[in-house]
Amino acid sequence: MKDADLRSWAVVRGAQTRKEILRTSVDVASAEGLEGLTIGRLAKELGLSKSGLFAHFGSKEELQIATIDAARRDFVASVIDPTLDVEPGLARLLAMMEAWIESVEHGRYRGGCFFYAASAEVDDRPGPVRDFLVKLTGSWVSQLKKELRLAVRLGELAASTDIDLLAFQLHGSVQEANWFRRLHGDEKAFDLSRAAMHQVLRLNATEGGLAVLGDR
Amino acid sequence: MKDADLRSWAVVRGAQTRKEILRTSVDVASAEGLEGLTIGRLAKELGLSKSGLFAHFGSKEELQIATIDAARRDFVASVIDPTLDVEPGLARLLAMMEAWIESVEHGRYRGGCFFYAASAEVDDRPGPVRDFLVKLTGSWVSQLKKELRLAVRLGELAASTDIDLLAFQLHGSVQEANWFRRLHGDEKAFDLSRAAMHQVLRLNATEGGLAVLGDR
Repeated sequence: MKDADLRSWAVVRGAQTRKEILRTSVDVASAEGLEGLTIGRLAKELGLSKSGLFAHFGSKEELQIATIDAARRDFVASVIDPTLDVEPGLARLLAMMEAWIESVEHGRYRGGCFFYAASAEVDDRPGPVRDFLVKLTGSWVSQLKKELRLAVRLGELAASTDIDLLAFQLHGSVQEANWFRRLHGDEKAFDLSRAAMHQVLRLNATEGGLAVLGDR
Repeated sequence: MKDADLRSWAVVRGAQTRKEILRTSVDVASAEGLEGLTIGRLAKELGLSKSGLFAHFGSKEELQIATIDAARRDFVASVIDPTLDVEPGLARLLAMMEAWIESVEHGRYRGGCFFYAASAEVDDRPGPVRDFLVKLTGSWVSQLKKELRLAVRLGELAASTDIDLLAFQLHGSVQEANWFRRLHGDEKAFDLSRAAMHQVLRLNATEGGLAVLGDR
């Protein structure tokens, strides 16, 4: 191989390794927390040297932020992207919620919902890690509200719909299911979350909205 | 003082110190987690010697369990005890929920709801600490369900009421409010929780139940 080939191979190899490292770090952090995510802990899990990991992430904080960003990419890939083609409004809201519930219920992280675990951990720790998490979780709530407002404008939800309350109920139903499943191992947890979601959507739906919701 | 007096003074003094230590440890754990609750960390916060603390709690695990038990006593004192005299059924359920919301909204712990923070932290850590927390949080959910079932038998809630779903919604609304307040600083969080509670209770209430709920 020529020098240039070797260099680009090293770059690709490095990016791939970084990706693999982050896949593991999101998984570890979902269960043991972002504080549990030390370079040493991760090196052991991956069978890599500490110095090798330091080459990728200069500090624990950098590793934590890269880990949250990896979880964000996973979230976008499994919850947002697959619903981009769905009819805007109530149908897309339903699709996003279903994809979210599915990703938390059958997600691949050992500790369940990454953002739930991270929220409880960093909510009292001011700094860039907390700021990033506030931004991401806030943007998800905003996304839900945006779609709810569109559903009102499309006449699928009543004009009297309390958007803040409805978003609070939808978002809360998934967080509660994650809590219930993780701590109490309740197999029905996500069914309850789906039932709660349909109940509050029906409560605000117009005739047209009920047709979108179907007879579930 | 006689020897016996001295001894009983020492016992009283010891019990009082233990209580003070635990008051601080619940507070610290609500924000920094049960894992953050080392004997060293607590000694520093209290200005006590490590060996003095070791005399009270032999191990970190013992300290963690004693801390959870102290949080349980606080919960009973602020949420259960004040509602014992309230009319059983929907009125008592409402009183318990209001007292719970109030205790989380204006509680004295620096990190908000102790059980919310502890749940997310230990849900993936098998052992006696997790077992104790599962038992306590499960018993609170059972208490809510028991009161809901009584309200059905008293004709305040419809016979068709889905008790599991309703308890899930009530419990979830307070957890979501705590999340929303702690992470996003939203001042309306607990108002949303109250609004969500009243909405789902009304949805299941009979004429008699609506009278108990009032026109809020």
